[in-house]
Amino acid sequence: MSTHKLDISLEQELDALKLEGRAKPTERIIEHYIPPKGNNGPRYKLEGNDNEFIRLNSNSYLSLSNHPDLIDAADKATHKFGVGPGAVRFIDGTFVYHDRLEKKVAAFTNKPAAKIFNSAYTANCGLALSISNKKTHWIGDQLNHNSIIRAMRISSIPKENKGIFKHNDMADLKRCLDEVSPCMERVVVIFDGIFSMRGDYAPINEITKICKSYDSKFKDGVITVVDDSHGIGAYGDTGRGTPEFCNAAPDIIIGTFGKAFGVNGGFICASNSIIESVRQKADTYIYTNPLSVADCAAAIKAIDICDSAQGRQLLCDLQKRTNQFRQGLEGLGKESITGPHPVVPLLVRDTTKTHDLVNYLFNNGVLVVGLTFPVVPKGDETIRFQINACHTFADINHVIELLDQFD
Amino acid sequence: MSTHKLDISLEQELDALKLEGRAKPTERIIEHYIPPKGNNGPRYKLEGNDNEFIRLNSNSYLSLSNHPDLIDAADKATHKFGVGPGAVRFIDGTFVYHDRLEKKVAAFTNKPAAKIFNSAYTANCGLALSISNKKTHWIGDQLNHNSIIRAMRISSIPKENKGIFKHNDMADLKRCLDEVSPCMERVVVIFDGIFSMRGDYAPINEITKICKSYDSKFKDGVITVVDDSHGIGAYGDTGRGTPEFCNAAPDIIIGTFGKAFGVNGGFICASNSIIESVRQKADTYIYTNPLSVADCAAAIKAIDICDSAQGRQLLCDLQKRTNQFRQGLEGLGKESITGPHPVVPLLVRDTTKTHDLVNYLFNNGVLVVGLTFPVVPKGDETIRFQINACHTFADINHVIELLDQFD
Ligand SMILES: Cc1ncc(COP(=O)(O)O)c(C=O)c1O
Ligand SMILES: Cc1ncc(COP(=O)(O)O)c(C=O)c1O
Repeated sequence: MSTHKLDISLEQELDALKLEGRAKPTERIIEHYIPPKGNNGPRYKLEGNDNEFIRLNSNSYLSLSNHPDLIDAADKATHKFGVGPGAVRFIDGTFVYHDRLEKKVAAFTNKPAAKIFNSAYTANCGLALSISNKKTHWIGDQLNHNSIIRAMRISSIPKENKGIFKHNDMADLKRCLDEVSPCMERVVVIFDGIFSMRGDYAPINEITKICKSYDSKFKDGVITVVDDSHGIGAYGDTGRGTPEFCNAAPDIIIGTFGKAFGVNGGFICASNSIIESVRQKADTYIYTNPLSVADCAAAIKAIDICDSAQGRQLLCDLQKRTNQFRQGLEGLGKESITGPHPVVPLLVRDTTKTHDLVNYLFNNGVLVVGLTFPVVPKGDETIRFQINACHTFADINHVIELLDQFD
Repeated sequence: MSTHKLDISLEQELDALKLEGRAKPTERIIEHYIPPKGNNGPRYKLEGNDNEFIRLNSNSYLSLSNHPDLIDAADKATHKFGVGPGAVRFIDGTFVYHDRLEKKVAAFTNKPAAKIFNSAYTANCGLALSISNKKTHWIGDQLNHNSIIRAMRISSIPKENKGIFKHNDMADLKRCLDEVSPCMERVVVIFDGIFSMRGDYAPINEITKICKSYDSKFKDGVITVVDDSHGIGAYGDTGRGTPEFCNAAPDIIIGTFGKAFGVNGGFICASNSIIESVRQKADTYIYTNPLSVADCAAAIKAIDICDSAQGRQLLCDLQKRTNQFRQGLEGLGKESITGPHPVVPLLVRDTTKTHDLVNYLFNNGVLVVGLTFPVVPKGDETIRFQINACHTFADINHVIELLDQFD
């Protein structure tokens, strides 16, 4: 057999994507990591390119991915148990490291229990599969991450059981809550903690207050869920993320070990009954191998570091460099979205200029992401910078100077 | 806020699961791996239990998880690049190891291209998201894995665009093909290579022949997809899996690095256009961190080993032990499903007896899985044994003797 006829049709679909400006460019391949040296933070080398690059598009906010203690923890776990679990969790694919990581992240988020997943992506899918029934209504922020939107699909939530509120618009959230059919028994309000394209945050204290005022209307109440993938570890005085920053306690916390914690994997933290429901019902937990013990061991170590004096110092470095960069942009008269998060958008508001600036930075050894229509609305074309704790004063200065020289 | 009201409702739902016999038991936690010694294969120790266990419920068919070369490859990659990628693939989360693994698995399956995922679970979801449009009709085997069923949901395939044929029933597959609406342009026939609960295989040569005879009826043809998660590496003369065993060439091959290859992760192998569509459209590829470089490096090594004299020897050991076990069961007059796959079901055909036998084996140091209603139909209650290359003659003999003593 051959897929010749299908291939032709798919190529037409791909051409259409390109025409719409939605096609992703060829992937660049990282070939070398060069550790920090003198005034320089780490550099990266790409296949087919002789330059060294500063990475301003990494989610590894605390720069823990290359921390020797994490690498050491991963090594040790691998030597003890091997590279793969060889089974799903309920068929003896549960190793001490999985159990320990669940206890560790539950304690870190101050929740009674946790379940870990291969990613925050599958954690979101797993939550929807676990706590939704026919009388559950879901309400989400319009800018929620793709994994939350797909979570609604994978668990077959019908259109009538869904509401979307305008980004961070509390009046519109109320409208959504008002519109829930009275025959619903359970309402779930779900939102990103940090919105990854903008670096702004959900006003969780306001959201929980509003939800509370509707709680008595529904048999099982109104449940708040934050996906704090970009917040956990990187945000709040002790790295607890957006809930800490907002001084709020959402009911369920979802997150990733793949950003500030520098590893991979996702988690759900919540009450014991919710977590037991996840274990029993989340197909994306049940029917797939769990994380390797190496990932678990490294994530345990990452949380330990995050929760230590060393972690506070990393958070402090991150905050300093973020401020430096934000002030640098301001000094150049550039438009951004204010806030203390290490995701710093530079609003260019023009497609061609965005592409030109991304290319200019690339040619000058800086990796960033440009966001153009339809990823962002027309007129909102943006370059996203992500500050990491490993960036030095000189690194940030250099990038600001480059930006200054562009205009 | 508290989830008290929700917790009460969820506990009722969990109680209902238990009553139906569908609740999963508490997870056992593996605390120690004990390498092979003398006549014994590896043993495992569980938390809170002093015994040593033979694991007859691992998917690591070639026993590569603890292979020193895989562990070494994982270590080296981690030391070179760190523990996490820190980004998604298209935002410079692509490292040389990701690229190499894709080339390696494409070559191994004899396809032009490949994309890797965090799991076969998300690979199935990714494929459906990539090649399905409104005029695509999906046909699947009734016993397909949960991830294929969820893949239909996550990509919102409507009911009218789906058909299910009776397990391995070619006449019923034809019925499904006959029933496809003539306004459909693309038909995808998708099936497990090895059915994990039974150890039997899809007759891929028959399936591809039938599909070919319908190909001209549809604009984009009839595409065959095998999810060969339990076959790849463990089946066929050179470990190419069920297509090799059946001497057939399905259009798209999905699989996992988490079973015979002993690591973690999933893949799709297919034409260049299909794989480029996956890269552009598979949300479960695009919006989530990729595998760690450690997993990739270990999987590359696993494929290399599988494709060497050492791999042939492992396959040969696996086949010998599987035959020994199957013949042992036969000698005891036990019912099984014939076939050469290392998944060997023992049909007990009684719920209580299945539970008793699983417990008896557990108490005698053997880990297996019992399958009772509703996981299998009433009357089909089964114990699933999985043979691995690391099991010794003495290990298998011991288990057969235990089974003999049970009756
Ligand atoms: C047919 C099939 N597909 C997918 C999977 C899931 O594999 P993974 O652990 O890589 O998600 C399994 C394993 O249970 C399987 O049997
Ligand atoms: C809000 C949110 N959820 C989930 C994810 C996915 O995280 P992971 O890589 O662990 O799947 C991201 C990352 O892009 C995110 O921003």
